[in-house]
Amino acid sequence: MEDRTSNGGDEKKANNNLLMAAMENVEKAGNQAFGLAARDNTGVLSPFHFNRRKNGDDDVTIQILYCGICHSDLHQVKNEWKNTVYPCLPGHEIAGIVNEVGSNVRKFKVGDKAGVGYLVGSCGSCDGCKQNMENYCPKLIFTYNSTDKDGTTSYGGYSNFIVVNQSFVLKLPDNLPMDKAAPLLCAGITVYSPLRSSGLAEHGKHLGVVGLGGLGHVAVKFGKAFGMKVTVISSSASKKDEAIRRLGADAFLVSRDPEQIQAAVGTMDGIIDTVSAKHDLATLISLLKIKGKLMMVGAPDQPLEVPVFPLLFGGKAISGSIIGGIKETQEMLEFAGKHDITAEIELVSASYANEALERLAKGDVRYRFVIDIGNTLASAASSASLC
Amino acid sequence: MEDRTSNGGDEKKANNNLLMAAMENVEKAGNQAFGLAARDNTGVLSPFHFNRRKNGDDDVTIQILYCGICHSDLHQVKNEWKNTVYPCLPGHEIAGIVNEVGSNVRKFKVGDKAGVGYLVGSCGSCDGCKQNMENYCPKLIFTYNSTDKDGTTSYGGYSNFIVVNQSFVLKLPDNLPMDKAAPLLCAGITVYSPLRSSGLAEHGKHLGVVGLGGLGHVAVKFGKAFGMKVTVISSSASKKDEAIRRLGADAFLVSRDPEQIQAAVGTMDGIIDTVSAKHDLATLISLLKIKGKLMMVGAPDQPLEVPVFPLLFGGKAISGSIIGGIKETQEMLEFAGKHDITAEIELVSASYANEALERLAKGDVRYRFVIDIGNTLASAASSASLC
Repeated sequence: MEDRTSNGGDEKKANNNLLMAAMENVEKAGNQAFGLAARDNTGVLSPFHFNRRKNGDDDVTIQILYCGICHSDLHQVKNEWKNTVYPCLPGHEIAGIVNEVGSNVRKFKVGDKAGVGYLVGSCGSCDGCKQNMENYCPKLIFTYNSTDKDGTTSYGGYSNFIVVNQSFVLKLPDNLPMDKAAPLLCAGITVYSPLRSSGLAEHGKHLGVVGLGGLGHVAVKFGKAFGMKVTVISSSASKKDEAIRRLGADAFLVSRDPEQIQAAVGTMDGIIDTVSAKHDLATLISLLKIKGKLMMVGAPDQPLEVPVFPLLFGGKAISGSIIGGIKETQEMLEFAGKHDITAEIELVSASYANEALERLAKGDVRYRFVIDIGNTLASAASSASLC
Repeated sequence: MEDRTSNGGDEKKANNNLLMAAMENVEKAGNQAFGLAARDNTGVLSPFHFNRRKNGDDDVTIQILYCGICHSDLHQVKNEWKNTVYPCLPGHEIAGIVNEVGSNVRKFKVGDKAGVGYLVGSCGSCDGCKQNMENYCPKLIFTYNSTDKDGTTSYGGYSNFIVVNQSFVLKLPDNLPMDKAAPLLCAGITVYSPLRSSGLAEHGKHLGVVGLGGLGHVAVKFGKAFGMKVTVISSSASKKDEAIRRLGADAFLVSRDPEQIQAAVGTMDGIIDTVSAKHDLATLISLLKIKGKLMMVGAPDQPLEVPVFPLLFGGKAISGSIIGGIKETQEMLEFAGKHDITAEIELVSASYANEALERLAKGDVRYRFVIDIGNTLASAASSASLC
């Protein structure tokens, strides 16, 4: 694929053509699907053919057009969280077109834009499920690398189509380009949810955003849409201009500069911390105002050291959050549609997926890779080797 | 002193006599005060004579009758927080009788019961002060071991009287015995404040209380008064009967018993953690429900290890809190008066103070030592040696 970028512009006609082709393909192939999966902890993706379940009465089948590459895909294909089941077919930032609905489905019809995020099932009866926080259900079924209700392993969005219970399918706002909207399904809701539930998403509040990657850059956009003052906190100044000019941040703070840090002590109502590596929390805590909140959305696999005195002397809190419930995710998408919030992406071909993962491991992406599944997966999945 | 315990019963007559004697003493002595102070990091208390400022227009002078021994007194006299100024005269759980008021003082009159807690001054203009959270003012003046506005070092409640700006003097409910009410000024507000501000102080919520000492046992009482289910979490079963029968806890959990812990996983809305030593947080986090809150009110001087995944998968939070603002402290006292909440104490003579500190260091107290300042300080402060 020569051109890896896209402005995500008018795609209606292209989508229609894709949909027609996709429907024909699905009809021909029954429930045989294909995609890109890792076979071992090298994490290298290669073509993978498998079966999806047939569309049930409560299911929606989505022809996948775009799928974001989340940092957790990288952790998962390399078994860094020690729970990967191979073959592992990642992808939970899925945007596509509905091409089949079950007899009980009313919310979606064939041809609708639809999205799938981090989760495709939950128990329905626990405290989390009852409170619209399926994301905290202990029996949560992740979109990939999870055991589905039928006992099979779930496979994600680096594939041509997916069959999902209607309760876990999201409507995508019509005005958002689907490639750029795809990352909202994970990166977007991951930062939106703690901002909302913390009560910080208010005009005039001061938000710090640590780490300007896939999550962080969307946090800046949501923060600004909420009317907050947003300061990006980063270990180097390299992204300063972009943070301010391209993403709309109000300020930029280099965390290794003691003078800048000192000047910002006690100024922030909340901080979204998107960093997955082990890192210093004491400095971040010092930046918070009284009763300030440090919201962790990255996933460091080692415990972090928390100094208690700085929490005590300020009534401060450290909280964790993963993604969001389905109702909240739908709300987030509508908010994003209203405020024209999408991710900044590099649209890549499926054949580029392994290189994209390598670049992601080095932090070399601005700000999210999205795979052009609709136009490029078929050829990549039929070729002997991927780059 | 032979009898170290008291039921805190009808003390009106005794207090009146003490007040008369105290007023005579103050009149004779001008602003010369005396008490018990540590001279070095052995932490040993000995008699100490010093001057208090004269009662100013906005001041209230309180003849001290009782003063609780807080665990932080122990840290402070031994310089364990590396900031002790010697001589160090501790005590911030002060209950007594007003014997002088300045010309601007309307809230108090001579003869009133009054209390002083952890703080005696603040800047009045910072965010904390403006929001009635003087406890988080960066220029907070602690009741002892702090630099007061006149440049002198503040001396606490192990002394015969204290002069305090009226804004930092609390009214003590008439129905509460003053010896048992004294610990509410620190231990009480320290657990009351996070319970209130977390939104957990509601009927039917499940509260865990870690550590059944001076703070923990009062947390049980407040929790029950709020209508919560209260479970005490302790490393040994030794206090189980007392926790349930004497303090009214609903359940008792031995944290070293894996079966008991497993059965309680995900059952608590919040946990008050009063432990000052380094300890395991992962187990406590596991006990919380979705969106549960671990509220730290102990003061470990080393950082604690926080596993991030358990915070993420449950949307849980760890918060810190110290004491409370003056308005909230007054509210707490009124609530305590209404619900008859006081501390369980061992009333000791001033001459027993050093032994009490030693026993406190070993955790050998149920549940708070309170010094009978009014009846015993004068003789202890005039003797050559204290036990």
